[in-house]
Order: sequence, then C-alpha cells, then structure tokens
Amino acid sequence: MRKIEHLGIAVKDLKKSNELFSRLFGREAYKEEKVEGEAVVTSFFQMGEVKVELLEATSDDSAIAKFIDKRSEGIHHVAFAVDDIHAEMERLQEEGFELLNDVPKKGADHKLVVFLHPRSTNGVLVELCQVVSNTEKP
Amino acid sequence: MRKIEHLGIAVKDLKKSNELFSRLFGREAYKEEKVEGEAVVTSFFQMGEVKVELLEATSDDSAIAKFIDKRSEGIHHVAFAVDDIHAEMERLQEEGFELLNDVPKKGADHKLVVFLHPRSTNGVLVELCQVVSNTEKP
Repeated sequence: MRKIEHLGIAVKDLKKSNELFSRLFGREAYKEEKVEGEAVVTSFFQMGEVKVELLEATSDDSAIAKFIDKRSEGIHHVAFAVDDIHAEMERLQEEGFELLNDVPKKGADHKLVVFLHPRSTNGVLVELCQVVSNTEKP
Repeated sequence: MRKIEHLGIAVKDLKKSNELFSRLFGREAYKEEKVEGEAVVTSFFQMGEVKVELLEATSDDSAIAKFIDKRSEGIHHVAFAVDDIHAEMERLQEEGFELLNDVPKKGADHKLVVFLHPRSTNGVLVELCQVVSNTEKP
C-alpha cells in the first residue's frame, strides 16, 4: 500500500455537491464519470496528490444509496494505491483482514478495486486500487 | 486550500489500532502525540504526502468519545493544508460555510486548526490546518 489515492464522499445530489465542493476547495471538478457496475455517478477534484471523489447513487440498490439511508451524507471510503492488487489481497488476507470481493472489480477512473470489510478495519471502509490503463499516470 | 494534509480516524484503543493499521499499511506509526486541549492521544502514519492520524479520547468529554458513542469507530475528519488560516476562514465564511471555532486553536503536529460544521459540508467534518512551526516542512 503506497499512498492514499482518493477519498470517497457519498452525496445525494452530485450537481449541488459539485457546486458546494467547488466553493470549498476553490477549484472545479475536473471530470465526471458513470460507473454502471456500482450504480453511481461520480466527480473528481484534485487536491495535491489525492483525489476527492463525490458519489451519487443512480439506483436504490447502490451501496451509496444504502449508506446515505443509514448514515446520511459524508465520507464513505478511503482508497489506497497498490502496485499489484492480487499480491496485496493475499497479504491482507494472511494478516486477517476480510475482503468484500474475492475478485477485483472495475471501478471509476481506470482502476481495478477491492474493498475491505469495515469490521476488520476499525469501521473504515478501505478500498485498494490499481491503475489498469496506460493513459493515466499512476 | 492546497491539499489533503491528513485523515483523522476515531479509535477506541490506540495501542490496538496502531497494531492493526501497521499490519494494514505495512509500516509503523512514526510518532504519537497527546493533545491536551482536545483530550486526545494521537498517532501518525505517513502514506504518500498524506498522514493518517488515529485519535483515542482521554476523557468522556472529548469530541472523539462523543463521536464513537454516536457512530462507533471510523473516519472522523479530513484536514486540508492552508497557507493563511485567517484568510481562508474569511473566504469560507463569505462562501456560506459555518466555522466551529472563531479563533484557530492549537492542534496536533504543530498546527493551528479550525473545523467547519459538517452540516455546511455534506456531512464531512472538514479541518483547515496551517503549520506554525519551522521545524517541519509544510
């Protein structure tokens, strides 16, 4: 695990939250992206080497919709960059951490992603992500 | 607001959580620090340019104790580095954000800090922090 790659924030209305976080950060979101597999639409702000990702659910079944129902808007997950997601999954399982998916899935921003169960990480939803495209720098 | 400076995680038992996050990150906390004014004891892990700060309450009156009572352990706040905390406080108030303290207070890690009320920031507890010591790089 090298560094924090991004911080995910669950929001109800991406358009309103883009406007709010633009005023907060003093800069605009640099892209928006729909992730069909997760039933979310996302936007990204660059803050130093870390991205802030806003996530709005596009379906009531989305994990983001369930999170907001239960806890309301706020920080949803923190993602860490890894060079080899399969090796890191193996290492973390041996260390006793619980993975939420056995096989990496396609996330936003050209990434392969895996989540760790918050009950094994002090209540923090941890994402591991590995860049799978050569079109973006890692 | 330049970059994410650190991510704060509320924990019940700093010693146990230091051990847990050491296994997660594959590295040790590089320092521990008590912050009397906030009634917390903290530890820091360096992950790229961002620090992960674990916070354990030393009193039931601590904001961290109250957070854990209400929401259990997990991500508590995200802190952004600013060059001039007073100028940034003024800018954010003009933008309609609500400050939790009118005057910056002394935080951990040689910082002057101010918090924004989560109800003005989509449920995210945002900290602004400015380095006040010359002994650490910003």
